[in-house]
Amino acid sequence: MVEGKIASIEGWAAMDNKSPLKLWSYSPRPLGPSDVEVKIHFCGICGSDIHAIDSGWGASIYPLVTGHEIVGKVITKGENVSNLDIGDLVGVGGHLYACHQNDCKPCSRGLDPHCPKSAFAYNSKYEDGSLSYGGFAEAIRVDSRHAFRLPENMDPELAAPLMCAGLTVFTPMVRKGVKKGNRVGVVGIGGLGHLAIQFANALGCEVIALSTSDNKEEECLKLGASQFINIKNQEEVAKINKSLDYLFITTNSKSNNYTQMAQWMTYEGTMCLLALPENNIEINPGVLVFGSIYLGGSLIGGIEDVKKTLEFAAKHNIRPMIEKMPMKNINEGIQRVRDGNVRYRIVLEN
Amino acid sequence: MVEGKIASIEGWAAMDNKSPLKLWSYSPRPLGPSDVEVKIHFCGICGSDIHAIDSGWGASIYPLVTGHEIVGKVITKGENVSNLDIGDLVGVGGHLYACHQNDCKPCSRGLDPHCPKSAFAYNSKYEDGSLSYGGFAEAIRVDSRHAFRLPENMDPELAAPLMCAGLTVFTPMVRKGVKKGNRVGVVGIGGLGHLAIQFANALGCEVIALSTSDNKEEECLKLGASQFINIKNQEEVAKINKSLDYLFITTNSKSNNYTQMAQWMTYEGTMCLLALPENNIEINPGVLVFGSIYLGGSLIGGIEDVKKTLEFAAKHNIRPMIEKMPMKNINEGIQRVRDGNVRYRIVLEN
Repeated sequence: MVEGKIASIEGWAAMDNKSPLKLWSYSPRPLGPSDVEVKIHFCGICGSDIHAIDSGWGASIYPLVTGHEIVGKVITKGENVSNLDIGDLVGVGGHLYACHQNDCKPCSRGLDPHCPKSAFAYNSKYEDGSLSYGGFAEAIRVDSRHAFRLPENMDPELAAPLMCAGLTVFTPMVRKGVKKGNRVGVVGIGGLGHLAIQFANALGCEVIALSTSDNKEEECLKLGASQFINIKNQEEVAKINKSLDYLFITTNSKSNNYTQMAQWMTYEGTMCLLALPENNIEINPGVLVFGSIYLGGSLIGGIEDVKKTLEFAAKHNIRPMIEKMPMKNINEGIQRVRDGNVRYRIVLEN
Repeated sequence: MVEGKIASIEGWAAMDNKSPLKLWSYSPRPLGPSDVEVKIHFCGICGSDIHAIDSGWGASIYPLVTGHEIVGKVITKGENVSNLDIGDLVGVGGHLYACHQNDCKPCSRGLDPHCPKSAFAYNSKYEDGSLSYGGFAEAIRVDSRHAFRLPENMDPELAAPLMCAGLTVFTPMVRKGVKKGNRVGVVGIGGLGHLAIQFANALGCEVIALSTSDNKEEECLKLGASQFINIKNQEEVAKINKSLDYLFITTNSKSNNYTQMAQWMTYEGTMCLLALPENNIEINPGVLVFGSIYLGGSLIGGIEDVKKTLEFAAKHNIRPMIEKMPMKNINEGIQRVRDGNVRYRIVLEN
């Protein structure tokens, strides 16, 4: 790769849904006037990457280069790019393109990931028909509005997980009005969960961490949880019945019991799915109706949400706990995520 | 019954879950200092009454006097009652008692139906252990804070359905922020649905009525819907995909397809269950997550919600469409509701 003149980009691609990733090259779409080219320094591994590799949410488009928690340096920019300069350290997340037209309802409401012309980091097509490829690669070409200059003093390797995991947990907290004094439950303590604890704690909430792994208790308390409960301990779990204002569900485990979770909520409580189960979910409607409880979900966040996430994380010193590995060890990293023993995010380094 | 000196109250009771209602007398609990006794003039028949009679949501306590859309006249009052006078025409709904203490979280937040000491119109116990009995009767004894003077010029027989059906549809509209310009869907055009159309229309919304009965189209449009869609017409239904800000689901039909309904919602849309299905409901979580859509429910409303409902209905001339019958024909009325051919609420008259 020659800086500023990329003819082809080398990335780690899944060629199908069962083989290890392998190095593969693709020709990036032409650099548009609003685009930047980012040389990738770091990229986190998110559970969604693996679901896509496995075609777990429907058939993926192979060869597939996943990765959407990207931090790197701007090495080329289009003629209309005014918000970024060559050499800037930027973060790039899962959403790479939206139309940004005033007559687009989602774009005009700051909900650009819902733009019908959206392109995501992979398994996605741009308006011009070209395919998108993600961050497990040496570089990425992206609309400059979807690349975000990192706050001063933010460690670039720690910024990577904020681009998806951090954004995903913080956005619904802001949009659904989580505030000081709320009791917030976090189910599943992994890449998203360990950040949700920190964000909710920084918002002034009382945070209850819920997990099946007792050995995460100490870390949860250090991260800001006021209480840790093993979900398997029915007696302990029953004590939080009708007490939570918000619940962030960061695991898509088949053993999730949504009716039981709804019983933890106080009247008018809000439950938010942040991980996507592969099958339909079931819930007792009486618990929703009698408690005036709502269950919904959230999809990453828009441009303004990313800015808020980075700013809030920098201000409150929210720091993902990561394990760094060389990008070339990506297959080992993916296996670690599959095994579920990462504390709490693997960040690959080029 | 001697006015002001009721020793026993005669009501229409279910003695089990299969026989017709019959006249039965009970001794009301002692009149407390904050209580009033209301001579019942009108009482609407709500689907919930029938579910309770049938023990559809769990075993009911028999003899069971249902009925919770009550309008009548105050005939006796306790010594501490200052908000009502003898002779006042009042409405009484499904929620008859809460503790109203400052240290009660629901009561202090205006969510008195969630008070742990709540008594509802039937199948419920007061703090002192006495059972509650509802409005299919000659009279009811109730805490004066849960009896509401009717607005001037409101027709008492039309006020009855506002005490439950009206309250139930309007409360989540207020709490969830329905506002002018929103696109609001109403599923099921019956007692609740025909009021939901009117309330949403009066709030300045574009209202889409969804039903399986084509013969309700004309009335829906008269009531303020801008569009009527037969849910069985898949082609028409598909046209509203991703377009609704709110959906109020007033039917608990087993054929409700919650995943399809979620597909009608725009990003950040809110779906609200206002009728209680007897079994678990199933939904595709992807539709919730990708659309940032929330599905929840709502339980009647609190004291302030009742006041808002009556005031708003009076101001905007919201008028339930009713069929009036003598109270003694209650079994015929219940059969009509079971048959699903009421337009749109039966109101029984003493």
